[in-house]
Amino acid sequence: MTRVTVWTEYRQERNDPAVASVYPDGIHTIIAEGLRDAGFDVRTATLDEPDHGLTDDVLAETDVLTWWGHVAHGEVDDVVVERVHSRVLDGMGLIVLHSGHHSKIFKRLMGTTCDLNWREAGDRERLWVVDPAHPIAESLGEGFTLDAEEMYGEHFDVPAPDRLVLISWFSGGEVFRSGCCYERGRGRIFYFRPGHETHPSYRHPGVRRVIANAVAWAAGPKGNAPERRDRPEAPGMESSGG
Amino acid sequence: MTRVTVWTEYRQERNDPAVASVYPDGIHTIIAEGLRDAGFDVRTATLDEPDHGLTDDVLAETDVLTWWGHVAHGEVDDVVVERVHSRVLDGMGLIVLHSGHHSKIFKRLMGTTCDLNWREAGDRERLWVVDPAHPIAESLGEGFTLDAEEMYGEHFDVPAPDRLVLISWFSGGEVFRSGCCYERGRGRIFYFRPGHETHPSYRHPGVRRVIANAVAWAAGPKGNAPERRDRPEAPGMESSGG
Amino acid sequence: MTRVTVWTEYRQERNDPAVASVYPDGIHTIIAEGLRDAGFDVRTATLDEPDHGLTDDVLAETDVLTWWGHVAHGEVDDVVVERVHSRVLDGMGLIVLHSGHHSKIFKRLMGTTCDLNWREAGDRERLWVVDPAHPIAESLGEGFTLDAEEMYGEHFDVPAPDRLVLISWFSGGEVFRSGCCYERGRGRIFYFRPGHETHPSYRHPGVRRVIANAVAWAAGPKGNAPERRDRPEAPGMESSGG
Amino acid sequence: MTRVTVWTEYRQERNDPAVASVYPDGIHTIIAEGLRDAGFDVRTATLDEPDHGLTDDVLAETDVLTWWGHVAHGEVDDVVVERVHSRVLDGMGLIVLHSGHHSKIFKRLMGTTCDLNWREAGDRERLWVVDPAHPIAESLGEGFTLDAEEMYGEHFDVPAPDRLVLISWFSGGEVFRSGCCYERGRGRIFYFRPGHETHPSYRHPGVRRVIANAVAWAAGPKGNAPERRDRPEAPGMESSGG
Repeated sequence: MTRVTVWTEYRQERNDPAVASVYPDGIHTIIAEGLRDAGFDVRTATLDEPDHGLTDDVLAETDVLTWWGHVAHGEVDDVVVERVHSRVLDGMGLIVLHSGHHSKIFKRLMGTTCDLNWREAGDRERLWVVDPAHPIAESLGEGFTLDAEEMYGEHFDVPAPDRLVLISWFSGGEVFRSGCCYERGRGRIFYFRPGHETHPSYRHPGVRRVIANAVAWAAGPKGNAPERRDRPEAPGMESSGG
Repeated sequence: MTRVTVWTEYRQERNDPAVASVYPDGIHTIIAEGLRDAGFDVRTATLDEPDHGLTDDVLAETDVLTWWGHVAHGEVDDVVVERVHSRVLDGMGLIVLHSGHHSKIFKRLMGTTCDLNWREAGDRERLWVVDPAHPIAESLGEGFTLDAEEMYGEHFDVPAPDRLVLISWFSGGEVFRSGCCYERGRGRIFYFRPGHETHPSYRHPGVRRVIANAVAWAAGPKGNAPERRDRPEAPGMESSGG
Repeated sequence: MTRVTVWTEYRQERNDPAVASVYPDGIHTIIAEGLRDAGFDVRTATLDEPDHGLTDDVLAETDVLTWWGHVAHGEVDDVVVERVHSRVLDGMGLIVLHSGHHSKIFKRLMGTTCDLNWREAGDRERLWVVDPAHPIAESLGEGFTLDAEEMYGEHFDVPAPDRLVLISWFSGGEVFRSGCCYERGRGRIFYFRPGHETHPSYRHPGVRRVIANAVAWAAGPKGNAPERRDRPEAPGMESSGG
Repeated sequence: MTRVTVWTEYRQERNDPAVASVYPDGIHTIIAEGLRDAGFDVRTATLDEPDHGLTDDVLAETDVLTWWGHVAHGEVDDVVVERVHSRVLDGMGLIVLHSGHHSKIFKRLMGTTCDLNWREAGDRERLWVVDPAHPIAESLGEGFTLDAEEMYGEHFDVPAPDRLVLISWFSGGEVFRSGCCYERGRGRIFYFRPGHETHPSYRHPGVRRVIANAVAWAAGPKGNAPERRDRPEAPGMESSGG
């Protein structure tokens, strides 16, 4: 069974009544609930735990990590970022959610600023499937609608996605590349846009379906770790491939 | 100077008063005007000319061909389609406009159905730049707006673009990958969405800028034609590259 | 269980003693044997059967089609080519083998000439994995070696692959993009280079592993067929995604 | 005129007689000579200069930076790395040469380990053009040969290149993706493999041609810097695009 670790800051839910009213037990609890319902083996971890809850042991037992952060990106220890980065390159899947676009780990993997435009005005958001054959689009049909969300607008400063699965339409007039797949090292990475802390998007069946599909995709086969070495002689590959 | 041939069907402008009122001298005349203003050497060709105006000689003297068709795709002679196809693979640029998505030449190059959804309801369209460093995005800033256009919606059944430059937002609720770059053989191909025959989009400065930028991009360097042959011996490449 | 149809011309094996000595019962028999050993439900079809063995019924019951042709590409009926093309866009996987690069169906899907260079001199070929996390690379390690094969050299005139999994090295001095993934419509396509009719490559465990991995990959999830229609009103997507 | 800054460590040339005999005045001198011959405005900078020669002023006046490092990657100041990184995202071109694959700046931009395999045995290297229409391939024909070079072998742990222009063949049996294009932010990045310090590759006309082509490509148009801001209202794009 695929093992998922759901990571969030879990700060605004404790400090900000407007957030607490939407996610009284933390955003991680609701994301985890959705993934358990989808049949995954889920644990959670949050910023204020020792090692942010992301020890070597936890990561070694994690097939896919989901990441939500917003107001405290700077408090994430660089040691933990490097640990997560190393595990992703070694094959752990990573699902970066909403304001996680500015997390250290996402910027570390992308190599760009990951900047974007935004507006907190409760725009209506429609998420359109533009790659219907991708596993992350499974059962989504043409897409789905969120009645109110924060707007994210282009230009989104990321490398061109290896696969672009979803594009968002906002009632205020913007578009956004909302579902972006990347492969780095042996790890699969998916950025998924929705999930502002004042909107109940992680309870929405479409959002839950995307996250579950993305976890299944990101847990996919990894092959073997490539060998890295000085090679005093050319390799004999005669016996391999069997 | 880059030599452009502007091709259109030139049918609805002669038969349909609603179209004639917008483009009395044909869509090709207005596209050509915009490209001449941008400094290109422009000729036009239309469906009802002999060989559709696209003889070997014309194509040999064409660096970039723009293509607009709508109601008469089926009347384009397969011989001419193969002639254009061959020239594109040999390095001629091709700009496919609006309903040209269903032209024989575009489907021939893409290998897919090139189907999409649509609505003729005068939607407001916003075209957003999602790849600001691409030459086709030059001077566009964040994008531009067309007050009324036909809607095209996803899923657009084309291969994933080699570069995606523009995404459209429609007031009715849809998005569309509106500016798609492809390279096939030694030719550069750009699909650009706007331009329904009942809207004056080819007079709009933003649309004109995109088409001019696309022509300049598609006229870019082509390298040499690759050699194709049986090679009884391994090649001696020692003297090349100089 | 994934249903595979193995298609070959089955001509040279009957006419040319040098080929018959390597594949006395036809290339298809040996490819099919390898796929049965890998656990697939396999049937075969060949050029001289009615409809080339590829009726609507057969294709409807085929999840993945493998294609080997060489001397008789021109004899494949265009009607059958369109039938296969339509099924690929609708989600059937397609594995194109060796000289199948010049088949009508591959050129139809790619939109390019699919030309390349070649040499029949029994070069040693090493196939290197360049995308070790791709499912088609699974269990291949760094790659494998074929003691003698026909050489295929660049430039290979195909669209840039969506994913490049294998690159070949030839003892005569050439390289070749030997394992190329494409997605078109809802279908997955894999081009795989080895398999000249005078060499027993389809008995090699590495080649068999690649073909089996490719079949498993190409049989992957397809999502739903996109809807195609005029839309007099904007879609209501509220209830979807569940 | 395009302004190029050629950066190298300039250490082994001063300490190691085997290197000094090939590049007595430093590798940078010879790279710079080739670029001046190609018509560029060239300056050089090296590790042991203050700020490694890469002050804000120097970078502000640099359109394209070339980077060669090998034994002292760890001595490059992180402040300078961030400065270069920021300039690349803002539009400065970057050409990473040979052992620069392990430089801080390349790893920072790629987000991966950039590991590879290698052998110092004076292999013969053939560089094949696999994208003949790319500007970096101009005038290269099919490619060229270096009589003796260090071998670099796959797997090369980088993101899949946005465009793959060159693949190397080595006499010892390996292949390598030798010419890789990336776009990050508004900057263009090219990785080019040859150039071990004990071989005179930077005097070779083919290598010089690639570097000159790459500089011209990387200096290409950048568009405008995207705006980044909270947007209390939807944007009015009506007046843009003109």
